[in-house]
Amino acid sequence: MYDLIIVGAGPAGLTASIYASRYKINHLVLGDMCGSALGKAHMIENWPGEKSIGGFDLLSKFYEHAVSLGAEILPENMIAIGKEGDVFKIKTSSNKDLEARTVIISSGTKERRLGIPGEEEFLGRGVSYCAICDGAFFKGRTVAVAGGGNSALMAALMLSEHAAKVYLIHRSDNFRAEPVMIERAKAEAKIEILAGYNIREIKGGDKVEKLLLDREYRGSEELLLDGIFVEIGMVPNGVLLRDIGVEIDELGHIAVDAACATNVPGVYAAGDVSSGSSGIRQILSASAEGMISASSAYNFLKTK
Amino acid sequence: MYDLIIVGAGPAGLTASIYASRYKINHLVLGDMCGSALGKAHMIENWPGEKSIGGFDLLSKFYEHAVSLGAEILPENMIAIGKEGDVFKIKTSSNKDLEARTVIISSGTKERRLGIPGEEEFLGRGVSYCAICDGAFFKGRTVAVAGGGNSALMAALMLSEHAAKVYLIHRSDNFRAEPVMIERAKAEAKIEILAGYNIREIKGGDKVEKLLLDREYRGSEELLLDGIFVEIGMVPNGVLLRDIGVEIDELGHIAVDAACATNVPGVYAAGDVSSGSSGIRQILSASAEGMISASSAYNFLKTK
Repeated sequence: MYDLIIVGAGPAGLTASIYASRYKINHLVLGDMCGSALGKAHMIENWPGEKSIGGFDLLSKFYEHAVSLGAEILPENMIAIGKEGDVFKIKTSSNKDLEARTVIISSGTKERRLGIPGEEEFLGRGVSYCAICDGAFFKGRTVAVAGGGNSALMAALMLSEHAAKVYLIHRSDNFRAEPVMIERAKAEAKIEILAGYNIREIKGGDKVEKLLLDREYRGSEELLLDGIFVEIGMVPNGVLLRDIGVEIDELGHIAVDAACATNVPGVYAAGDVSSGSSGIRQILSASAEGMISASSAYNFLKTK
Repeated sequence: MYDLIIVGAGPAGLTASIYASRYKINHLVLGDMCGSALGKAHMIENWPGEKSIGGFDLLSKFYEHAVSLGAEILPENMIAIGKEGDVFKIKTSSNKDLEARTVIISSGTKERRLGIPGEEEFLGRGVSYCAICDGAFFKGRTVAVAGGGNSALMAALMLSEHAAKVYLIHRSDNFRAEPVMIERAKAEAKIEILAGYNIREIKGGDKVEKLLLDREYRGSEELLLDGIFVEIGMVPNGVLLRDIGVEIDELGHIAVDAACATNVPGVYAAGDVSSGSSGIRQILSASAEGMISASSAYNFLKTK
């Protein structure tokens, strides 16, 4: 039985652990550092005191700080959470059963899926959610980007540096991306924009070979290509919390107050998974929320 | 005319500047790094990623980061603020007149004064507000600490390592300090506790020579000593803001919402001077509030 289990090992979770150690709270961090969006960030230039540092390097500094204060870190995910009386029951990805008196959820976000046939099947064989990570594998090839926001436009522009051809496929004529991004994409000869098209299926053999569209484009519903990058936003990783009655807001974030407390006593949320920090989603706000949630958990445990 | 003036050069103000530079806001930081409480902190062990770092070293990292992004920093204080139409008018300690469209107040706190005769006169000649800074100058001497909270008890214990004798003088029999601190002070032979005594005056020649108490202690109202450390808490440095109608809460903090906005449009507050962060007063929360206030100022300027 832990006094606190922290779910997630990004900047929010690791800062919560640093403060929990200083409060002498018997706690466990459940999470894989590689799951954190920070770890995947190419370069960070807005963490105060570090003019320019790789995302994984900064995350490693947090990790080492937490470990130096005695943090116990289990590199697994939470796959279920329940509540019996005042005790939270957590099941991990290797089916370990853990118990805690309080919980901090700092599980971040994950890439939103298209939810179409072939998407899971071809993951890593032509389907990617990370243009920075995988773009260079498509040198001289034909790829598509699905999405209409800034991250989709940015991915298309980045991919045009490697690929021979980039289709930008957006379900609507309305782009959420900033006008300057759209202008830049239109000015890039390798990029071809398909507005008002839905992707129905991803097809192929060993690897992705084509997309099936919902209507004809240049005389065919099939679009031949080698890869597709899905860039349709992020979804908070907190939906499991509904199982213990935690309120989730309309955007999928765990609803918290200024003390990072949810509506369920003993459950706190910090970082991108939460509704905190006035909607600013930065490493610094995630980290500060981790601190606040540890302090709130400490105050809760003290009064028990 | 600046788009933004940031008052204070501690972690809140310097982080606000880092973000303001990234937002391309034409801004000035008004403040002396030496005025920040962080710069005076002996050792910091709760800034994520830094296991142990001197307060001034950490503050210097923030400073260099801000400067590397182009921050203009004027090492002076604000001595007056007014408002004409939509423009804020700020007077500096060298009587410079500055103008800005938005203001972030991150001026921190200052030591609370006793407000008795001799206190100003003997400042630096026996009167101190910093046991860490000045304690070692009183090796083998007799000193007093005024106050009854944790910081007063901590100062008394620290001073007992240098001084021959430490009087702990508290106006009440009730100590706000934690019981464990009081026990430790009572167990230290060099510390003598005067509970229920007020100090009426600090007297001396070139230097402090004695205190005048409000009633007799051991047969005299005079207490002979070489120094007095005033440890009766901190007061937020924001009272000037009342002149432009900014709301100050009952503890003297500038009242802000989750976006670090005050009740006056275009005025934001961050760090120890503000009521933000659920009352947690940490470097991390100050820094996060600096970020949030810069973002709020940016949104305000964008809509103008």
